[in-house]
Amino acid sequence: MNDSQPTESDLKKALNHLLEWCAEQRSDNALTSVNVLPDTGLGQAEAGRLTANLSLKRAQSFQSPGWFAHMDPPTPWVTWTTQAFTAAMNQNLLHPDTGEIGRRMEAKVVAALAPHFGMDGGHMVPGSTLANLTALWAAREIAGAKEVVASELAHLSVAKAAHILGLPYRTVPCDRAGHIETDQLGNLEGSCLVLTAGATSTGSVDPMSPMPKAAWVHVDAAWAGPLRLSPTHRTKLAGLETAQSVAVSAHKWLWQPKDSALILFRESKTAHQALSFGGAYLAAPNIGVMGSSAARAIPLAATLMAFGRDGIAERLDACVALAERFAAHIQADPEFELWAPPETGVVAWRPVKGEVSALRERLAAQGYFVSQTKLDGEDWLRSVAIHPAIKVDAIYEAARNQ
Amino acid sequence: MNDSQPTESDLKKALNHLLEWCAEQRSDNALTSVNVLPDTGLGQAEAGRLTANLSLKRAQSFQSPGWFAHMDPPTPWVTWTTQAFTAAMNQNLLHPDTGEIGRRMEAKVVAALAPHFGMDGGHMVPGSTLANLTALWAAREIAGAKEVVASELAHLSVAKAAHILGLPYRTVPCDRAGHIETDQLGNLEGSCLVLTAGATSTGSVDPMSPMPKAAWVHVDAAWAGPLRLSPTHRTKLAGLETAQSVAVSAHKWLWQPKDSALILFRESKTAHQALSFGGAYLAAPNIGVMGSSAARAIPLAATLMAFGRDGIAERLDACVALAERFAAHIQADPEFELWAPPETGVVAWRPVKGEVSALRERLAAQGYFVSQTKLDGEDWLRSVAIHPAIKVDAIYEAARNQ
Repeated sequence: MNDSQPTESDLKKALNHLLEWCAEQRSDNALTSVNVLPDTGLGQAEAGRLTANLSLKRAQSFQSPGWFAHMDPPTPWVTWTTQAFTAAMNQNLLHPDTGEIGRRMEAKVVAALAPHFGMDGGHMVPGSTLANLTALWAAREIAGAKEVVASELAHLSVAKAAHILGLPYRTVPCDRAGHIETDQLGNLEGSCLVLTAGATSTGSVDPMSPMPKAAWVHVDAAWAGPLRLSPTHRTKLAGLETAQSVAVSAHKWLWQPKDSALILFRESKTAHQALSFGGAYLAAPNIGVMGSSAARAIPLAATLMAFGRDGIAERLDACVALAERFAAHIQADPEFELWAPPETGVVAWRPVKGEVSALRERLAAQGYFVSQTKLDGEDWLRSVAIHPAIKVDAIYEAARNQ
Repeated sequence: MNDSQPTESDLKKALNHLLEWCAEQRSDNALTSVNVLPDTGLGQAEAGRLTANLSLKRAQSFQSPGWFAHMDPPTPWVTWTTQAFTAAMNQNLLHPDTGEIGRRMEAKVVAALAPHFGMDGGHMVPGSTLANLTALWAAREIAGAKEVVASELAHLSVAKAAHILGLPYRTVPCDRAGHIETDQLGNLEGSCLVLTAGATSTGSVDPMSPMPKAAWVHVDAAWAGPLRLSPTHRTKLAGLETAQSVAVSAHKWLWQPKDSALILFRESKTAHQALSFGGAYLAAPNIGVMGSSAARAIPLAATLMAFGRDGIAERLDACVALAERFAAHIQADPEFELWAPPETGVVAWRPVKGEVSALRERLAAQGYFVSQTKLDGEDWLRSVAIHPAIKVDAIYEAARNQ
C-alpha cells in the first residue's frame, strides 16, 4: 500500500497521454482482454498508462471540426485541468465542511448566469434530465401540478420525470417546424406545462411569448438556453424569463464535460425550501435530487472566466452561422432535402435518393460525423452545431460526392 | 476566439498547481471579489491559474491523515489524471456513438464488481442517492411496491426517493447499536424494505441473514458495500447477496472523486427493461434516471487496476483497524464516551464533560478533523475511517489534552 503523492514526473507522463491524444489518436484493441480488477495492483502510473491506451486513445473525439452530429461539445482544455483539480480536492457540496469552496463557486456561477434567464437562483445538477426532474418535482410540491403537458418533440426526460413523480403525461402536437400547437394546449389549470427551447431532433423553440397560463411553466432549454448570452440570438428565447423554472445543460452549449447542468427558478428560495431534506449529520439542508455532489461549478467557472461573456457569444454565434450556412447548401441543392430552416444550430437533412444511414456511414469513413433521428416516422440525418469551427463546406462537399 | 490545443507547457503549468497543492496549501481570499463571467475572457491559462488560487489552494484537503470526519475520501492521483482524460474525451454514455469506450469500460467494471455482491449487473450513477432512487423506482415498477420501509437510521435519500416516487415511507426503530428491530418490521407483503449496510452516523449494518421477506429488498450499502471485497470483513455483510438490489458509493470506500456510485441488481436485465426510455435519436434505450452521463467508470477502472483487489482489501482493512484502535482508546478513557463498538469504520464518540462542538473546533485548529451528528437527539462526534493512514493516536492525544 503505497499512497504517496505524485511527483512532477508522474503527472507530466500522465499528461503526455493527453498531448499525444491531441496530436493524433491511436487505436489499441486491448479493451476486451484487460482485467479491470486484478488480484494484485499495477500501481497508479501503470494503471494510468493502461487507461490512456484503453480509453483516451480509442475514444471518438468531439475536438474534431468534422463532428457535426450529437449535442456533445469539444471541451476547452482548462476544463481538463480544472477537472483534475476537482478530482484532487474532491469537494462534496452536500456539507459546508466538505464543500465550502465548491458551494461558494457554484453560488457565484448561478448568480452570474441566472439573471440572463430572468431567474433569481437555482443550483447545479449532473445533466438536464435531472434538471427537468427537479423542476417537475417543484411544480408538484409548490403548484400542486397534477399532470405534465409537453409537445410531442419534448425530450424523453420529461416523460421520464413525470413517470417517476407519478404524474400523468399528456403530449400536444407540433407544427411542421417543430413548435408546440398552442391552440391545442387545452386546460392547463392543474398542469405543469413544459416548453422546449431547442428540441433534440430539430432545435426548434416552442413559442413562449406570451407565455401560456398554467399552474407551473418549465422551459427545457437544455440545448438552446445559452443563446440568452448572445446579444444576436437572445431574442430567439423571448418570453423564457416569464417561466417558473428553466433547465440549461452546461455540457452542451457551454462546452463543459459531463455532468454539468443548471436548474434555475424564478423564486429559488421557495423552490429550494420545497425540495429540502435534513439529516442528523448535515449542517445545512440537502436541496434537490442529489445528495453528495461534485464541485461541477469549478470547470464551468474556469470556462466562463477564460472565454468571458463576449467569447461565449462569439462561439455561439459561430455555431449558429455554420448551421445556417450548411442548411443553405442543402436547401439550394436538389439532391438534398432540408426538414426546416434551423432555428438554433440543429439541422435535419437527408439525401433525396438513397439510404440515410448509408450516407452517414460513408461520411464517417471520411472523418465527418453526423447523427440520425426520426421525424414523422422517417429517417433523417441530424447535424448539431456545437463545435465553433465545424468544416461545413467540406462536409457538404463530401455528402455531394458520394 | 482561440480554441487551439494546449501545449506541453500549458498542461505542465496547470499541473504544477496540483503539485504545489500536494506540497502545501496556500490561502488566497479573492473568491468574494472575482467576477466569474467577465465581459472579456482571460484566456484558458490565466483562468486555470485563477481557479487554482480560488479553489484548489483554499479547499479543505481530504488527503490529510488528520481527516477522520466525513465519508469523503482522499482520491488516488490516478483519478486526477484519468478525470482529466474523461473531461477531454467527454464521452456521453447515453448513446453508443458518443460513448462506446465509456459504455464498454462501465460494463467491465460492473461485471467485475457485481458478483462480489451476489448481483448479476447494474449501472453507474452519480451517487448513492440516485442509486437508492433507481432501486426504489425498480421496486415500484417490478414488484408493485406500495410503500417503503426502512430504519430510523436510514440515509435521508431513502425518504427522499420514496417522496419523489409518491410512495408512503414508514420507519422502524433501531436497537442501541443501530440495527433495525426486525421483530417490528410488520407486514412487508406490498413493501420495498430498505436495509442499511453502514448507517451514516454509526456505521451499523442491519441484520440481513436471513433476509426478511418483502415485495423487494434493497440494501443501501453506500458506505459499507466495498467491505465485500475484503476477505477479512466480507462476512459483516452476510446475506446482502439475497437482496434484489444493492447501492454502493464508489466515491466513499472505493476512493473515487464525486460523482461515482453503482446500482446493482440481482436480475439486472429485468430491472433495466423496467427503467428504460427510448427516443428518436437514441440507438439504444436510455436506462435509469440519468440521460447524458459521464464515463465515471474510467477513473474507477484505473483505481481498481492500480490497487488490485488485494490493495483495495488492504486499504479497507487498515481503515477498519484504525477505527477500532481509536474506539479502544476512547473506551478505555473515562474522560470519553463511546456510542457503540464500531462495526464498519465509523466511530461515534464524545467527551463526558464539555461541549462536543467546542472539542471539534479545537481539534480542527490543530489540523484534526472530526464531524458531528445527532444520536437519540444528543450531539456526538463522528469519525469516519476513509483515509487508510489516519493518525488516530495523535487525534486521541489531541482530544485528551484539551
